Amino acid sequence: MTTGSTPEHGYVHNKHKDDVLKRLRRIEGQVRGLQRMVEEETYCIDVLTQISAATKALQAVALGLLDDHMAHCVADAIKGGGTDAEAKIKEASDAVARLVKS
Amino acid sequence: MTTGSTPEHGYVHNKHKDDVLKRLRRIEGQVRGLQRMVEEETYCIDVLTQISAATKALQAVALGLLDDHMAHCVADAIKGGGTDAEAKIKEASDAVARLVKS
Amino acid sequence: MTTGSTPEHGYVHNKHKDDVLKRLRRIEGQVRGLQRMVEEETYCIDVLTQISAATKALQAVALGLLDDHMAHCVADAIKGGGTDAEAKIKEASDAVARLVKS
Amino acid sequence: MTTGSTPEHGYVHNKHKDDVLKRLRRIEGQVRGLQRMVEEETYCIDVLTQISAATKALQAVALGLLDDHMAHCVADAIKGGGTDAEAKIKEASDAVARLVKS
Repeated sequence: MTTGSTPEHGYVHNKHKDDVLKRLRRIEGQVRGLQRMVEEETYCIDVLTQISAATKALQAVALGLLDDHMAHCVADAIKGGGTDAEAKIKEASDAVARLVKS
Repeated sequence: MTTGSTPEHGYVHNKHKDDVLKRLRRIEGQVRGLQRMVEEETYCIDVLTQISAATKALQAVALGLLDDHMAHCVADAIKGGGTDAEAKIKEASDAVARLVKS
Repeated sequence: MTTGSTPEHGYVHNKHKDDVLKRLRRIEGQVRGLQRMVEEETYCIDVLTQISAATKALQAVALGLLDDHMAHCVADAIKGGGTDAEAKIKEASDAVARLVKS
Repeated sequence: MTTGSTPEHGYVHNKHKDDVLKRLRRIEGQVRGLQRMVEEETYCIDVLTQISAATKALQAVALGLLDDHMAHCVADAIKGGGTDAEAKIKEASDAVARLVKS
């Protein structure tokens, strides 16, 4: 982690942060597009296709954040050693389990 | 299907349409909330939890639309008989496959 | 449905039944392979890759059965009309929801 | 990691190994049960319910292995430092991505 402004949370390298925000804004646009489709009574199947696309885009953001989290927060905690490392690993595993089930 | 305004697409009973739109607006709010969390450098794991919630909410909308689609469009096509029925069933199956994989 | 031996359950056309059984036997082999991998202390990541493959294979069987179920049982119930059709559609939707969540 | 016989692969603590094998044998039994259900032309929806159960059981094994992998292999690599740590984190992230998509 190189940016002084983000001492704790590894995912917020300025460059990565911008990328995540850009993706989330695109997803927001997809969800607004879904509302329009429903308003205009677009054929269900086309709405479902678009929902699958938005879901995949959300999962891609999650996987990106998780990567960064493991490479920074979890790695730093492990280097620091002690019970904090175990807690961070447990927490990351639980997040993975929620993603797999969602 | 009872509403005269939506002859083709079963999911758009006026009551159901409002419900779907309400859910999609809530999801849009969740995605905007995610942007705020990233802007404010919220802890990754909390962002991931929120992404899982938004993903589940999108899937719930998809399952609701699919139910309605099967109960109306697909059922009507089957009652009508012929190749259209087969095409509708194939199309619904493909949509299910995309949901399961997304 | 053309085979006299399977009056109720559409997925068991003799040809399709053989295909499903062949896939399930292959999955059984994959699960036994996983046991061997664990016995022999294969590298975790390789075990995980194999688990993902078995999971996908199970989902593919499920999607195939669901297709057939919709094309036969559900379609027949809809042609028959009445509350049975609604019950079948509800049941299929619930099965889809379980698949999407599993 | 305390067992001398498994210097590399964290998941194979003897106790944990037995537990994983027991779960995999149970899943093998579920898959054989599925074959019997198809042989006996059990109602599709019941077969689908059982497939969802087997899929969930496989995912639970995967999540358990991943936990252990992160707590041992990945943590050891991070303590060791260098490019190996990065490679291990990347590899674990890729495995998570495959699980989420499967």
